[in-house]
Amino acid sequence: MSKQKRTAIEPTREQNYAEWYQQVIKAADLAENSEVRGCMVIKPWGYAIWENIQRALDERFYESGHRNAYFPIFIPKSFFEKEAEHVEGFAKECAVVTHSRLEDNGEGGLKVAGELTEPLIVRPTSETIIGASFAKWVNSYRDLPLLINQWANIVRWEMRTRLFLRTTEFLWQEGHTVHENYEDAMLETRKMLDVYANFAAEYLALPVIKGEKTDSERFPGAVNTYCIEAMMQDKKALQSGTSHFLGQNFAKASEIKFQNREGEMEYAWTTSWGVSTRLIGALIMAHSDDNGLALPPKIAPSHLAIIPIYRDEEEKKEVLKYCKRITDLFVKDYFEDVRVYTELDDRDLTSSERNWYWIKKGIPLRIEIGPRDIASEAVMVARRDKEPRDKQSVPISELHSFVHKSLREIQDAYYQRALEFRKANTIKIDDKAEFYRFFTPQNQNQPEIHGGFAHSHWCQDPACEEQIKNDLKVTIRCIPFEQEEEEGHCICCGKAAKTRVIFAKSY
Amino acid sequence: MSKQKRTAIEPTREQNYAEWYQQVIKAADLAENSEVRGCMVIKPWGYAIWENIQRALDERFYESGHRNAYFPIFIPKSFFEKEAEHVEGFAKECAVVTHSRLEDNGEGGLKVAGELTEPLIVRPTSETIIGASFAKWVNSYRDLPLLINQWANIVRWEMRTRLFLRTTEFLWQEGHTVHENYEDAMLETRKMLDVYANFAAEYLALPVIKGEKTDSERFPGAVNTYCIEAMMQDKKALQSGTSHFLGQNFAKASEIKFQNREGEMEYAWTTSWGVSTRLIGALIMAHSDDNGLALPPKIAPSHLAIIPIYRDEEEKKEVLKYCKRITDLFVKDYFEDVRVYTELDDRDLTSSERNWYWIKKGIPLRIEIGPRDIASEAVMVARRDKEPRDKQSVPISELHSFVHKSLREIQDAYYQRALEFRKANTIKIDDKAEFYRFFTPQNQNQPEIHGGFAHSHWCQDPACEEQIKNDLKVTIRCIPFEQEEEEGHCICCGKAAKTRVIFAKSY
Repeated sequence: MSKQKRTAIEPTREQNYAEWYQQVIKAADLAENSEVRGCMVIKPWGYAIWENIQRALDERFYESGHRNAYFPIFIPKSFFEKEAEHVEGFAKECAVVTHSRLEDNGEGGLKVAGELTEPLIVRPTSETIIGASFAKWVNSYRDLPLLINQWANIVRWEMRTRLFLRTTEFLWQEGHTVHENYEDAMLETRKMLDVYANFAAEYLALPVIKGEKTDSERFPGAVNTYCIEAMMQDKKALQSGTSHFLGQNFAKASEIKFQNREGEMEYAWTTSWGVSTRLIGALIMAHSDDNGLALPPKIAPSHLAIIPIYRDEEEKKEVLKYCKRITDLFVKDYFEDVRVYTELDDRDLTSSERNWYWIKKGIPLRIEIGPRDIASEAVMVARRDKEPRDKQSVPISELHSFVHKSLREIQDAYYQRALEFRKANTIKIDDKAEFYRFFTPQNQNQPEIHGGFAHSHWCQDPACEEQIKNDLKVTIRCIPFEQEEEEGHCICCGKAAKTRVIFAKSY
Repeated sequence: MSKQKRTAIEPTREQNYAEWYQQVIKAADLAENSEVRGCMVIKPWGYAIWENIQRALDERFYESGHRNAYFPIFIPKSFFEKEAEHVEGFAKECAVVTHSRLEDNGEGGLKVAGELTEPLIVRPTSETIIGASFAKWVNSYRDLPLLINQWANIVRWEMRTRLFLRTTEFLWQEGHTVHENYEDAMLETRKMLDVYANFAAEYLALPVIKGEKTDSERFPGAVNTYCIEAMMQDKKALQSGTSHFLGQNFAKASEIKFQNREGEMEYAWTTSWGVSTRLIGALIMAHSDDNGLALPPKIAPSHLAIIPIYRDEEEKKEVLKYCKRITDLFVKDYFEDVRVYTELDDRDLTSSERNWYWIKKGIPLRIEIGPRDIASEAVMVARRDKEPRDKQSVPISELHSFVHKSLREIQDAYYQRALEFRKANTIKIDDKAEFYRFFTPQNQNQPEIHGGFAHSHWCQDPACEEQIKNDLKVTIRCIPFEQEEEEGHCICCGKAAKTRVIFAKSY
């Protein structure tokens, strides 16, 4: 093991990656488990990241003609029974409302009463309930395309939960659109995948691979499922967004019909697409280090921690006045399209304690201000992407532009680092033995850690996919869009195959 | 009945107020009933109003130090059993989750399975579940004040529902704060009521009366409930927001304790406050007329409907080019703190149809553009607060400032109109017979319509309150903060009383 350096997060990534993840969340105060099985509490610093995700995506959805709406959280059981594949994949593990009243139980407690005629399911996804509305809204080709998005909470009764990555209740957005024909619906499906990929790159500093899911990983009821996949620092893949081409399947289940340009009634073509609070898990695992959270400036809840340093009341007065000059520089200031926020941390703690507090929260920049800085009309600036003790004196006259330049550099640095990490841990493998070695853990302490992403040929036989999954817990993350056609042999059975797919362990 | 004028909404307010309300919502395409009992679908135009409400309030919450967070939608039954008054008032009519799985029923359908050990309640309000987190977060006076807000969906099993005003599921924000002492908590409670009142006035153009609820109308478990009450056009009151001083009641139920400045452990003081999608109901009923919705510009989803008029393809090309010049004037334009949005309505409908479409949706301004306008470098502008046919030619060079001026005037006009309506329908009543006459319907077709707000003395005896409620369906809406002390006699029993309260029928 490498020489130990003291880190703010224990254990380190190398020591125990899964536990490191939990500790980063705790140290940054992002979220915690609640007393309700599998449901998390998203704390202010974590929720603000979600709000920034919402703001950036909303802008993109709106510009591309989508409008937000809100549909009921409850779905009648009968709605699920309409689409056979869908129910198979979804309706099994879910929260079921069966009663509408509590009554005194005569012992100072409450008992359940008022049984419903038909049980209601707390939405695990909303295709069926939104479809019921769309069936009423769509009558003619003139009503199309219908482009709707919903921000909502979702419940899936998960057995093993993990903050942000897999929780019983989570927050997401779900786009639902209706089109005249195959081409328009397919175009929409792919366009929204691009929106996700661009958003991930530009805001989350997360390089993603766009591709299509195999049949076994497809959304239940969809014709095609497209996804963006990102590599985490344990080299596992995290599916960060999906876009589904639903063909006419859900239109048939929900009776979404319209009069086409020829005057005939036909079933519409629909799509759905979503990202969730899982993205925050991706963000954490892509950029954080052994000192805690690292936030790309374009998604950070706040950008500058201002840490005044003084010894007595007299110095305090002067230093705080100087701090005010600094915060004033960033009032209603924007870094590109993102509002800049500052945090004045005047708590009764040492400057080291306050610095570490903000390092662990991942704030992009820290500014220390003491009497000496006032004398020199400057401040000490530290960047989260550099070593904790690496500070630089910046004249106050240049501070505004220095901050903006640094935010851009940090944003770019995180993206580059994540991209290089993925490149370093992605290889083409054409030999089965090598493939199996690649996915065999090297470190006995961390059996989850493995080789990374393998680009290998696959013959399209689900049996081969299944075999590899059973042997190695490795799945096909996607059939990437970008690839040269290249003859080869299925990594599992050796039969001729034309396309490489991405094999990886995943969240 | 007055001479009939053709109106876009039928029936008119005078003919059937309750039905008029439904028709305004339908004509503006704000929301509709879903196939799930009591749950509504909020359509894009309605949801955009809610988003504007969120945006404006969020800014105010943030500036006053509050931070958003998110807590579980499910509350274990046992949590409700902790606070006796609270459970009495709340936990009775609610959605209860008892199972976590659906299974094939062997007949092609699904059956409920996986019974939970403890039933979960879908939150009807979150004091108890948030209290469980706060108990962990608060340890010392240094952790206080704790100022949290949540935007969430809420479920209360309502029997008679009405779009926006009373639905089984609705959207709201709930602020929850923790303080060191009585004074700080009380200050917060009152401060947030002021935030609501100012927001209602400035954004919704809704004049409200601030006051305190009587014991019988208090939030279950609260020490004091404060509210803002608005008058609708049927002269009924609509409670538009509440702020609760919870004393130490919920802190005791949830064990929220902290070490005070003297080093002793004590229970904290908490508050909660909320507004909901009900505000949209208030907005509709305060300003809309017999031609449909009327939206104050500061809360409207969009501000300008641009209606091109042309006879052939050649004119079309020219007119649309001119329209582009107009829309370009308002790209990333702000009316005060509100982003200006424009709608280019180039649908294949007559200009009259398009005008009426936007009148019914309540858009503040409509701009017609035809070949003659191009020739004169002008456009025809119509305001929603004037007669539908009242149009004015505005030179394009002055259009931007004309629009901004008009938006401000419309905003003010709606507020003034609502204020004058309330004044005209509010009186002091000191005579019991007159009081009973005031609340007796004058129009047999609309038994709900009555006199308005009566400022009358009340002796503080719940029996008098109860008597009037039983006799007239009239309740005490609040004990208004603003009033001169004035000796008088209880309007019900005649005993000496010092304060006037507001009596009204209400939603």
